[in-house]
Amino acid sequence: MPGSTCLFCRIARGESPAQIVRATPDLVAFRDLHPQAPTHILIVPRRHLSSVSALEPGDAETVGRLFLAAREIAEAEGIAQGGYRMVINAGPDAGQSVFHLHLHLLGGRGMAWPPG
Amino acid sequence: MPGSTCLFCRIARGESPAQIVRATPDLVAFRDLHPQAPTHILIVPRRHLSSVSALEPGDAETVGRLFLAAREIAEAEGIAQGGYRMVINAGPDAGQSVFHLHLHLLGGRGMAWPPG
Repeated sequence: MPGSTCLFCRIARGESPAQIVRATPDLVAFRDLHPQAPTHILIVPRRHLSSVSALEPGDAETVGRLFLAAREIAEAEGIAQGGYRMVINAGPDAGQSVFHLHLHLLGGRGMAWPPG
Repeated sequence: MPGSTCLFCRIARGESPAQIVRATPDLVAFRDLHPQAPTHILIVPRRHLSSVSALEPGDAETVGRLFLAAREIAEAEGIAQGGYRMVINAGPDAGQSVFHLHLHLLGGRGMAWPPG
């Protein structure tokens, strides 16, 4: 069972500490430990999905809800008007470091291009 | 009607040129005109949604399907194993320049952190 040792599963279950900013029946959002912008929050589904590379057709709704949550969190954080960037990494070239699907929400400063 | 002048609506309808890499009943994917990585593709829903900031609860499935498409396109482009980054910008701080929701898919090189 991946959830027993997965860091983000553990955070979602309240077994590992995190600065939670939102918790719903299907997702949790918490502050990144190494923030790259004044607001940098990770939004993860409670259900363990390792990566975009492992998505199946039935997972679309779960992924889309991460973005509805991002929109609401951006408003709560006061970055909705200024703007915000949302990033999902898959695999080594992108720097994915935790293999539980997560959406990075960044804002509170101008974001450069290219995105890394 | 936003679609009549929106660039990405026009591309989706075949009225503006683009290097299309995938077209389904609900989305189109085409190469970015100013690529920031060896593979840089934009994936857009055919239905006009201006931004993540304009999403409504019923839109989750539409957004999630962009990521299922990203996964499949990454495989077709040969970047699935190496890894890829997916980015959605909302508003001025993030540099959103076309107000039709679009997912950037980037890969074929190592991506730096922070993501812009």
